[in-house]
Amino acid sequence: MTQMKRGPQKRGKVYGIGLGPGDPELMTLKAARLIREAAVIAYPTLAGGASFARSIAADFITDGTREIAMDVPMTVARGPAQAAYDQGASEMATLLDSGQDVVVLCEGDPFFYGSFMYLFARLKSAYDVEIVPGVTSVTACAAVAKLPLVARNEVMTVLPAPLLVGTQNRQNADACHTDILHNADTIIVMKLGRHFAAVRALIEAAGLTENSVYIERATGADEIVKPLKDAPETAPYFSMILIVKGADPWL
Amino acid sequence: MTQMKRGPQKRGKVYGIGLGPGDPELMTLKAARLIREAAVIAYPTLAGGASFARSIAADFITDGTREIAMDVPMTVARGPAQAAYDQGASEMATLLDSGQDVVVLCEGDPFFYGSFMYLFARLKSAYDVEIVPGVTSVTACAAVAKLPLVARNEVMTVLPAPLLVGTQNRQNADACHTDILHNADTIIVMKLGRHFAAVRALIEAAGLTENSVYIERATGADEIVKPLKDAPETAPYFSMILIVKGADPWL
Repeated sequence: MTQMKRGPQKRGKVYGIGLGPGDPELMTLKAARLIREAAVIAYPTLAGGASFARSIAADFITDGTREIAMDVPMTVARGPAQAAYDQGASEMATLLDSGQDVVVLCEGDPFFYGSFMYLFARLKSAYDVEIVPGVTSVTACAAVAKLPLVARNEVMTVLPAPLLVGTQNRQNADACHTDILHNADTIIVMKLGRHFAAVRALIEAAGLTENSVYIERATGADEIVKPLKDAPETAPYFSMILIVKGADPWL
Repeated sequence: MTQMKRGPQKRGKVYGIGLGPGDPELMTLKAARLIREAAVIAYPTLAGGASFARSIAADFITDGTREIAMDVPMTVARGPAQAAYDQGASEMATLLDSGQDVVVLCEGDPFFYGSFMYLFARLKSAYDVEIVPGVTSVTACAAVAKLPLVARNEVMTVLPAPLLVGTQNRQNADACHTDILHNADTIIVMKLGRHFAAVRALIEAAGLTENSVYIERATGADEIVKPLKDAPETAPYFSMILIVKGADPWL
């Protein structure tokens, strides 16, 4: 194992690495190598200490690796989470200034709805940051649903459920209702959670239920894949709906 | 090496595996394992025999692996390419019927604008097909550009350049001009090629040039990353523009 320590004359480097959707074998070779070689890793945890990111990476973390856990509260108010990222970035900065590299573990891809972006915003002006892209939940869901996403000149739109149902931005939500569901060939609705019933109603109203598949925890041990009409009544945060209008247009 | 041969009483299985954007280290652990273990691989080639997919996977292909190369002509007419996929699927079927598994190599992700979808359409009713998702060029481009794609409740739309400039579907193209560039927070324009100048003009007309980054062959040895205003005059097929309106909204 290469301990990527550097002399004190040189600042350490930040690696934001995507771990993929959940199956550890869907990690990239580069992510696995960087975790094995890391002297310091950092990752977000929920209240109680569980970390989905760390659980994906667990088999590659070597003994003696220093771990920075950031307790990020999942609240509607943004202050507490921002304070957690401030604290994490500060701990990382101390190590970076001493010349140590820090590998940040990120579910999916670091730059696709990832919490790593909050650390990136805090560290990018002072430190060298390298992003290692990962498999997103979007293509993982398509794979387990055996549903091709887009071919040829098709358009795909990804949007979070809270926006679609308009809890956060009424003006944008109206645009979504009238345009996004109709103008794209493939629509991915992410982060269902408590918005699931409202999203189903919108899809039904648009006449797209038959084109929709529900997927929960794709590639995980407890994965669920069902036509939307047969989906459970409630959905966790890590779930999505794929709406694919163009079935087999490529034949 | 496990030769995944099966007895003649059982049909073989098709694996459609994503290889990621170009850097072999961005292949998943699962893709690397399946290629190492494969008795038969299949992949598309351009006229002349070069295969980008095979070049990504090269270090993992073991001696004695049987290779099915499909010469797919890049023509506007669809007939010749369809004939190539018919021929490839037929070769694969003969081996699958004899109980042999076939691993199909796919650039990026198999279900995201991938040619694997043409084979999937031909084989899925008769054979068991497993899809191994890969890192797409979209998150790879964001990584090399160090440009976060979407956070919180932002909307992302992916569209191919030919559609945006309206060469193939005037009605949709009009919708794109007025809606897609304005309604999404992040827009990815793929497959630039000969449409590059027209796409630049549309982005400039929408006032979004300052929000746009041009990327060519992301993660490859000859990668180019530039603000769109400084991009080269011509673009290859494997290039894209990231338009990100929400710079650092997550601070």
